Formats: sequence, C-alpha cells, structure tokens
Amino acid sequence: MAFEKLKAAVWKTNRDIVRSGLVQLTWGNASGVDRQAGVMAIKPSGVDYDRLRPDDMVIVELETGRVVEGTLKPSTDTPTHRYLYLAFEEIGGIVHTHSRHAVAWAQARRPIPCLGTTHADHFYGEIPVTRPLRPEEVAEAYEHQTGVVIAECFRERGLDPLEVPGVLVAGHGPFAWGETPEKAAENALVLELVAEMALYTCQLNPEAPVLERYVLDKHFRRKHGSQAYYGQR
Amino acid sequence: MAFEKLKAAVWKTNRDIVRSGLVQLTWGNASGVDRQAGVMAIKPSGVDYDRLRPDDMVIVELETGRVVEGTLKPSTDTPTHRYLYLAFEEIGGIVHTHSRHAVAWAQARRPIPCLGTTHADHFYGEIPVTRPLRPEEVAEAYEHQTGVVIAECFRERGLDPLEVPGVLVAGHGPFAWGETPEKAAENALVLELVAEMALYTCQLNPEAPVLERYVLDKHFRRKHGSQAYYGQR
Amino acid sequence: MAFEKLKAAVWKTNRDIVRSGLVQLTWGNASGVDRQAGVMAIKPSGVDYDRLRPDDMVIVELETGRVVEGTLKPSTDTPTHRYLYLAFEEIGGIVHTHSRHAVAWAQARRPIPCLGTTHADHFYGEIPVTRPLRPEEVAEAYEHQTGVVIAECFRERGLDPLEVPGVLVAGHGPFAWGETPEKAAENALVLELVAEMALYTCQLNPEAPVLERYVLDKHFRRKHGSQAYYGQR
Amino acid sequence: MAFEKLKAAVWKTNRDIVRSGLVQLTWGNASGVDRQAGVMAIKPSGVDYDRLRPDDMVIVELETGRVVEGTLKPSTDTPTHRYLYLAFEEIGGIVHTHSRHAVAWAQARRPIPCLGTTHADHFYGEIPVTRPLRPEEVAEAYEHQTGVVIAECFRERGLDPLEVPGVLVAGHGPFAWGETPEKAAENALVLELVAEMALYTCQLNPEAPVLERYVLDKHFRRKHGSQAYYGQR
Repeated sequence: MAFEKLKAAVWKTNRDIVRSGLVQLTWGNASGVDRQAGVMAIKPSGVDYDRLRPDDMVIVELETGRVVEGTLKPSTDTPTHRYLYLAFEEIGGIVHTHSRHAVAWAQARRPIPCLGTTHADHFYGEIPVTRPLRPEEVAEAYEHQTGVVIAECFRERGLDPLEVPGVLVAGHGPFAWGETPEKAAENALVLELVAEMALYTCQLNPEAPVLERYVLDKHFRRKHGSQAYYGQR
Repeated sequence: MAFEKLKAAVWKTNRDIVRSGLVQLTWGNASGVDRQAGVMAIKPSGVDYDRLRPDDMVIVELETGRVVEGTLKPSTDTPTHRYLYLAFEEIGGIVHTHSRHAVAWAQARRPIPCLGTTHADHFYGEIPVTRPLRPEEVAEAYEHQTGVVIAECFRERGLDPLEVPGVLVAGHGPFAWGETPEKAAENALVLELVAEMALYTCQLNPEAPVLERYVLDKHFRRKHGSQAYYGQR
Repeated sequence: MAFEKLKAAVWKTNRDIVRSGLVQLTWGNASGVDRQAGVMAIKPSGVDYDRLRPDDMVIVELETGRVVEGTLKPSTDTPTHRYLYLAFEEIGGIVHTHSRHAVAWAQARRPIPCLGTTHADHFYGEIPVTRPLRPEEVAEAYEHQTGVVIAECFRERGLDPLEVPGVLVAGHGPFAWGETPEKAAENALVLELVAEMALYTCQLNPEAPVLERYVLDKHFRRKHGSQAYYGQR
Repeated sequence: MAFEKLKAAVWKTNRDIVRSGLVQLTWGNASGVDRQAGVMAIKPSGVDYDRLRPDDMVIVELETGRVVEGTLKPSTDTPTHRYLYLAFEEIGGIVHTHSRHAVAWAQARRPIPCLGTTHADHFYGEIPVTRPLRPEEVAEAYEHQTGVVIAECFRERGLDPLEVPGVLVAGHGPFAWGETPEKAAENALVLELVAEMALYTCQLNPEAPVLERYVLDKHFRRKHGSQAYYGQR
C-alpha cells in the first residue's frame, strides 16, 4: 500500500529510456530498489510504454520474488534484476535495453575497450561481455541465470559494480545500473554512446590504442570518489 | 459499400509506417485482409502519405484481383500482396517498405543471420533472401512473380510464415507480415532494427557466431506458442 | 517586377531541402527556370535559411548571367546552375546540397552503382562522378567550369539528364535536377538515400552485384515514359 | 557587475550546442572572451543544460584564472580555455564537445584529412590530432596541459588558428574556436559533419585522395580573407 515514491521514480525512468531513444517497442525495462523494505519496483511485462502509469509498476520482494503489490505481471526479466540487487549491494537501480550499438558489441561478443575520456569519465575500464549461458542454464530459470552469469563475470574479473556500472550479456544486450534508477538510465545512455563511438573508432583504426592508464585514472577520479572535483561539489 | 473497419486499420498502418521512419517518399505500402469476404484493402498507388484518408484505401477481390470498392488505382505492388495472402493462409496484414538497413541486406543478397535475442524474440531463425527473378518473370506479371518467389523461398526452406514473418526480395527490399496489419508493421520495424544491429555486428566481428540454438528456441517460445510467458497473458 | 510564382516555388524548395535534412548551415541551394522569359531564380549567397523570404530570391538572365531582379547577391554557385540550364534543355529546377552520404561517394570518387530497385525507380543506371577540375579551370571561372565538367560527363557517357537526374562532382558533392524545382529536391533526396543504402550494401558485400539489367529497365519504365503505370495516371 | 552581454552570448552558445545535437548529458562547454577587460565567461561545471541561465555563466580573469563574478564553480575545462585564449590571440570563443564522429577520429588518433570542399570551405587543410599527454602532465594541472599540447601542436605545424579553427585532442575529443562564441559553435558543428563524411569516405575508399591543393585554396579563399566573395559582402 505504500512505495508511491519508488514506483514514481521507476515509472519516470521507464519513460525516460524511451524518450532518449534507448528503447524501441517494449524492448527494455527499468527497476529500483528499497533496501530497507526489501523490495524492488519494476515495469510490468510487455505493456506499451505510452500506456504505463506509476501505479502499474509491480512491487516484488527481493528475497522470495513474490509480488507484494500490483495487479500486472512483472517484466519477464524480473529474476535478472532481483539477482543483481542481491549480488550487488551498492546499487539502487537497473536499466535493461536493446540499444543498437551496445547490442552490436554484445552480438559480436566483444567487450567495449576504453578508447577515450568519454568512456573513462563513466566506466573505469573496459565494459565486459559475459560468457554465453549453457543449455541447462537456459532450460531452467533462464532469467535468473542471466543474473548469475553477470555476477560471475564481475566476480571473476574483480570488478566493482559502481566503477563499471554496466555489462553486455553475450548474444543479448546491455544491462546498466547505478545508485538510483535515474543514474542507471544515465549509465545506459553512456554505454550506448560509448558503444557507438567505439564502433566508429575501430572502423577508422582497428589497432586503436586503449586509453593510457594514467588518463583513465585521472578522468574517472575527476568524477568519482573522494578526490572528485567535477560538478558543483 | 462496407469494409470501413478494414480500411481504417489499413489506413492507420500506412500512416504508422511513415511516422516510424520506415517509409520515405511513397516507398512503401500496407494492406490487410478480410478472409470471410475474400477481399484485401491496400493503399492507392503513388499518393502522398499525408494526403491519404481511410476512404482512399482500395478494396480488391483476393481471387480475381478485381477492384470492388474505391476510385483510385491500387498500389502497383497489389499482385504481390494478393499472391501472399493466397499462399500464406495464416496472415492478416502485409507491409512493404524500402527501409534502409533491410534494403542493404537485400541488395547485398545476404540473409540476415540470427545473431541475438532481439532477433530471436520475433523471427525464428535467419531472415531469408529470395532468388532473383528471371527475365521472363519480370517481363510478364512482375509484381505477381515477386509473390511467387517469396512463397517458393518459404516452401523450399520449409519455413512457417508466422514463425519467420518477413523476407528480403533480392535487389529490392523487405516484405513483412503478421496476423493483423498492425502486427505486420511491427514486424517490419523489427526487421529494420535487426538489420541495423546485424550490420554493426558484422562490422565489429565478421565471424560473429549465430545465436545458440537453445537460446533461439527459448526466446522465440517465451513470446510465441502455447508455452509463451511474455506479456500480460 | 514579375516572376512571383517562380520565386515562390524556388523559395519553397530552398526551405524544403533544409526541412528534409539534406542541407546544414548554408550548404546548399535550389533554383528554378522560366524558359520563356529566359531567366532563372536562385537563393541569395550565404543567407541563413530561416531568414529567407520569397522576395529574397534573385532573378538572373540565363544568357548573360546578369541580375535582373533582386537586391541580394545570388548564390556563388549561380554560374554552375546557369550552365546546366543551358546544357540540359529539358530540366526546370536544380538542387545542390552537401548531403552526407552523397558527399562521401563524391569524396571517395566512386560512382554510385545501381544495386537495387530503390535506385532503379528514380535513376536509370549508376550515378556518375565527374573528373576533377584542372588547375586552370579552378583559377578562372571555377563555378562555371563545374557546370562544364558535369555536362561533359553526361555527354561523354551518352546520358540523358532526365533519366539520370543527378551527378556527383568529384571531391565536392551532389547536384540533382528535374522538370521542376520540387522534382529536383525529390531527386536530391533520393540520391542521398540511395547513397546511404549503397554504402551499407558495400559494407555487407563488397562484391554486391549490380541490379539485373532487365529489372532496372522494368522499374525505371514503371515510373517513367509512355509505358509507366505507377501512380494515379 | 557587468559582462551581461558576454554572459548572454556564452549562455546562448552553450544552449545551441545542445540543440544542434553536438552535446549529450553535460559533455561540452562553450566560452567567450572580453579581451579589453581581460576576462572570459564560461559554463559552470556539471550543471544540466536545461537549467542553465545567463547569470549562471562564470567570469574568470584570463591572467590569473581567478573567478571575478558568479557563484558557481566554472567548468573543469576552464584552464584549457584560458590557455587557448592566451596562446591564440585572434580568437573570441571556444567550444568543446564530445560529438560522436569527431571523438572517433580523436580516439583513432588520426587527423581528419581534407577530402572535399565541405571541409575546405571551413578548415584550411587537415584537422590535426595532438600528441597524448605525458604522465607528469596529467598528474599536475591536467586541464592546463591540455591547452599546452593544443598550442604546441599548432606551433609545431605552423598552423594559423583562424585558418584551422579546431583540433582533436588524442583519446579525448574536439575543441573548436572562432572569432566569436557563435562562430566557434559553427566550427564545432562543421568539424563533426566533416568527421562523419570523412568516416564514410574512408569506408568507401581507404585510398581516397586528399582534395587537390588548388581546389582547397580556391574554396577556403572564397570564404576567408581579402578575396572572399561568398555571402553578402
């Protein structure tokens, strides 16, 4: 009976990812979490974006996956979101899209290398691509296992989800996240733009060098962490 | 004297394929069928889209090709649509466009491989390209023969038109279809977006692997058939 | 004191080539001709498109190049337009743009091959690229000589300007024309779209075949000449 | 207490570079200079473009870098702008963006060759790319050193900043400038469009020839210097 604010924020983010051109048709979803209440809010499955209202957002219990508020079925990708919230305790919002250039890298099964400062300002190093899911993982609890391979990918590479706030699922597309749903949407947009610029860069120079490590450090630290000096802090 | 509802639906679809950017100038047409009445409604030939009104749609008898309602000439592509309605009994609407990335694959004479889940959600496997028409086929009843080679392409490959709801005509462009005109337009948009993503993917990795068969099955079945669980079912 | 109708048509076309995205900044111009009066109307030089009014169009005498009406300087490309009106007696309007994909082919110094029916519906065969101008041609009467090399290109290849209503000037960009200014703008748009599709096609298949001659003939003749049956004729 | 006019011009330019699509998120900034007063106006750091008002522009002393008017922190790129105003005495405005195609050339670490007249009308020859900054330059006064390598790049190549009004910073992106903030924004747009056309050109013909020197001279001189005859002069 509550969660008005969470539902409003998640609804707004679902609308914004359409307006910014990241989502066509119903190819995408955004969610947000209330850690204290142990629930997440997410878009309902397969509903046209222009008919969505804040009250259509579905409230799902993090631990059990049970719907605790809402009359519609939650997004089929709900188990992926849920797993990520449990695995990445620092994040507050998740955005999944099929944005075109990010999908292309996911389909090409190549991580997006950090080729410049646009990337370095938002993602601390390359954006990884997961391993493909195995037949048995797809057969049982496919969407849950998608979350599992993402978390495995970050664990194996020793990546911090707030330093690299997004991933490419092999043969599928991007998931991005952040401290809030709004920030997750911004990271999803950055991921798409960086994917586009990296495509053009590779066309111009297949041997384009990765950004110098000391420039990567400088740019990421300008915007993140205790020494940040970008913005009105 | 009737068919108001069919004409309205077909008019709306003709307008929507312009709004979604699939059609420039007069390069495209949409039609819909009334199986019981044995007629189809289609856009008139070469009329500017912004001047079209529902009553301008032309009603054509499926069996004979005779215009049974309407004062304008039907689209020159009418015989193609008519042949497809007769060959593919399950379909209710057809959309033809010259959308840019789909045309590029048709001109390159390459089928669009299924490289990811965006494709798998809507097309069950690669989107085929027809053989070129022969000189004698072009000389007599060109537009009719275009329908013939599409149907031949599906028959030879054993494809189900509702599982692969679109095709590339070699050196020409895409035709898409569906259970309704609206669904045909959606499939035409998916075909264009999938064509764009596949182009970028091939640029990033000319050896990009086709989506694993078990993921293709999973995604297509999530949305189609008796085990579907996507959307508000 | 006259030419109101000609100026209005030319002004409208200059506005339309901005709206359709063919022209950025002041990179483009449209003109129209009144054969009986022996004059052409053209956009003034370097004036912002959104400040243009019909009365700003400049009336220039075809034979002499003398301004006979208007207070502004005509486009610097006026001598090119004038030469083309004198060389191609069938045409009534000319549009010059720096549209992006057409410029790319002009800079690559490659003619645009006819790869599909979109092209064949409007251009009867490949869109040629001129030879580069020689130093002495650039030094004296550069813009006039641009017209000369275009006409030479068509004469040497035996091309009919109404069958191939456009050209790429090497290292520069496209000129398109037609029976009216409006038709010239349509051909400029077709040229750009065809250039874009051909770029993607070559990326997908560098050996993509030219459209079969009998399909080219069929498509061009569907829309042009005595056997045309496209549109409401 | 003054500088109303300068702040208004700089605010307008910051707004225009968003509207023209050159800037996404907060990735860009524009500034203008008042040489007599020895100050520059620049956008504040990390503020959303749609909330910016003219009074938010920050006035910074050229010699010292001290903020002399304004309550917000100036853009983190302020030391780069300041250094460029001191090094290039002819310029009156600077625009920095992360526009996509220009960034791709910067990331590919390739100068943009002059392949056609679109380029030659605005940039007198290739658009250079700086050397990468060294670790010690990044460690101390990074943004200042970015200005230093740009000025070094122009000095070493003997380039005139008004003849080549822009540069690519390696692994970063474009800076453009001009006699006014408005002109700097125009040059930033030209740089992006020329970068896009050059990308396509290289895809069509990796050996595309540089524009003939005598055509470059002709086009640049049509628009710049004492013999210019483009526009209403």
